[in-house]
Amino acid sequence: MTRRIAILGSTGSIGRSTLEVVSNLGAACEVCALAARSNWRLLAEQIRRWKPGWAAMSDEASARRLREVIDGDVELLAGSSSLVEIVQRSGCDVVVAAVVGAAGLPAALAAVESGKTLALANKEALVVAGSLIVRRLRETGAVLLPIDSEHSAIFQSIQAGRREDVERVYLTASGGPFRTWTAEQMAEATVEDALRHPTWNMGPKITIDSATLMNKALEVIEAKWLFGLDPDKISVLIHPESIIHSMVEFRDGSVIAQLGTPDMRTPIQYTLTWPQRLPGCGEPLDWTTVRRLNFEPPDLERFPALRLGYEVARLGGSAGAVLNAANEAAVQAFRERQIPFGRIVPLVERALERHRWLPEPSLEELLAADQWARDEVTRCLNA
Amino acid sequence: MTRRIAILGSTGSIGRSTLEVVSNLGAACEVCALAARSNWRLLAEQIRRWKPGWAAMSDEASARRLREVIDGDVELLAGSSSLVEIVQRSGCDVVVAAVVGAAGLPAALAAVESGKTLALANKEALVVAGSLIVRRLRETGAVLLPIDSEHSAIFQSIQAGRREDVERVYLTASGGPFRTWTAEQMAEATVEDALRHPTWNMGPKITIDSATLMNKALEVIEAKWLFGLDPDKISVLIHPESIIHSMVEFRDGSVIAQLGTPDMRTPIQYTLTWPQRLPGCGEPLDWTTVRRLNFEPPDLERFPALRLGYEVARLGGSAGAVLNAANEAAVQAFRERQIPFGRIVPLVERALERHRWLPEPSLEELLAADQWARDEVTRCLNA
Repeated sequence: MTRRIAILGSTGSIGRSTLEVVSNLGAACEVCALAARSNWRLLAEQIRRWKPGWAAMSDEASARRLREVIDGDVELLAGSSSLVEIVQRSGCDVVVAAVVGAAGLPAALAAVESGKTLALANKEALVVAGSLIVRRLRETGAVLLPIDSEHSAIFQSIQAGRREDVERVYLTASGGPFRTWTAEQMAEATVEDALRHPTWNMGPKITIDSATLMNKALEVIEAKWLFGLDPDKISVLIHPESIIHSMVEFRDGSVIAQLGTPDMRTPIQYTLTWPQRLPGCGEPLDWTTVRRLNFEPPDLERFPALRLGYEVARLGGSAGAVLNAANEAAVQAFRERQIPFGRIVPLVERALERHRWLPEPSLEELLAADQWARDEVTRCLNA
Repeated sequence: MTRRIAILGSTGSIGRSTLEVVSNLGAACEVCALAARSNWRLLAEQIRRWKPGWAAMSDEASARRLREVIDGDVELLAGSSSLVEIVQRSGCDVVVAAVVGAAGLPAALAAVESGKTLALANKEALVVAGSLIVRRLRETGAVLLPIDSEHSAIFQSIQAGRREDVERVYLTASGGPFRTWTAEQMAEATVEDALRHPTWNMGPKITIDSATLMNKALEVIEAKWLFGLDPDKISVLIHPESIIHSMVEFRDGSVIAQLGTPDMRTPIQYTLTWPQRLPGCGEPLDWTTVRRLNFEPPDLERFPALRLGYEVARLGGSAGAVLNAANEAAVQAFRERQIPFGRIVPLVERALERHRWLPEPSLEELLAADQWARDEVTRCLNA
């Protein structure tokens, strides 16, 4: 059976890897929709290659440029609601949600509400709106398959037991480019330093989040929602080689882990073929070169983002939206060289302290909390 | 539902661990039969504690001693066929087959033929008679659950996929006490040296097999039968810490591994509670002390037993019976200080070279090949 795939964020790192996977899978998949924000040149190329029935650009000016260079066989939508429309109208079976940040939330939610299989790379959707998404999943019977390598590893490992037998999960973390840096060195790290990830080749936002360990903080919150776990049962373990992608400890003492070369195409493919596995396009692990795996506990002093992640996971409610939005704004300010690296996490913490917490926010309240947090970071920067 | 357990080899290392697990599991299990070879004192203690309806001793003189010290509430059988009788008559659901060596084969086969769940610690049963056991499993619908930590790890890991998606399995090996010894040092190793296992606390026969890596050779053959794998898809990987108990590589490039402290009670318990997991009695992995895992390829020059294992796995037929019996005889001669350590494997190889190979032997032919190999080793020792 051919699966019809919609890729939201097709011009980004995960989107491009997804197309490589689709190419490798051959007849098992068909691209029925592609969507991007503003990279109309690449989207035009992808449309010519994959011939989807539908395409969308959330940036209207880019959509106009795109319209000039493609022919009429594709239904092209434009504007901020076009991604939701693509999900609802393209007739896809699987939605690969690979838009970075909170902007991807409405389309991810639309996939769940339409009962599609949601292959979720956009961890912010769960961080911001985990309680909403989990509730709708139960109502619609939609399937959520995580693309994040850590959560994919947990999802795969958990199949060697039953959810009720899970005692603890271990999210592994490479430790990022500053694993061995002192707090003083980190305070003055440049954008180039932060973009030098030791093991994973990813987009810039997530790479900087790996340098602060905010990425792992977001993953703790994501794991809480995905697997219904108390935050105290989620451990973070620094593992610089990024070979063990995460682990599940069951109550009999057995630990099941998923391992592989650091290659996002493996977890992406798993979401497209699940529950089957088909031949992959990455390199298998070579144990003649992997001679040693190291582990160490994370340093919460040098990486305070992780502490914030646990606090937000325990709080729930609107805290995830604020953490995520304040972090997006602070990372943007760092990338634009307005603030030093060491100020990213304190800006996020300040927004969390000042926000008015809501225990059970609606989507509108979550989006308002998101906007408030971005404005709060801007106010702080201009103060 | 309480499971009724028969433990064959209850006074040995696996048998005693099984009783600890049963004690920990409480009402989930009930001991309905205990059997041992000759340790009547310990079996008497176990009978008083566990009050099984049935007991057996394969050594008749020991059975007479036992009869003098226990009361009449237990049905006590004696002699070489008593283990088979226990399996057939005790009304057990699960047979824990923990008799060391080829002596355990008839009872393991009887468990399969009675459609019981066979919890198999006795790897020799599969090495000697894998083709017979696998054929009978298909006919009777009995379930075989491996107790060997490596095969339990593979059995658990394989559940994260489908058997047809398995690309390769990795059997990990501690490397034994002689991992870093030169061939010259090993040639003159003493019984005490060989019994000094770095990570696992096991019986003496299996500990010496870990020193030659014959244990891993037997496990390659065992894995071939248990998982229906071509020997070329079974790799051995030296992993001195014995934390990763084995791994499965699927064709999408994902590797699933089972990890834990080196404690046989975990795989034993899994066979008693499968497909559930219940709280275990061992220590969970502590990642603040497990800081580093090492891996290296095995050295087939220093450990020729492993090469023999692959040859026998490819040959099939009567080769497994000869490998196993010649090894048992040679290890016994080493333990009795008749031969140096370095002569164990050459004696086995010589028996393999000289034996008349049968492609599809019956049980009688397998037992004859076993006896021939033991006699051949004795002839060699006396020559």
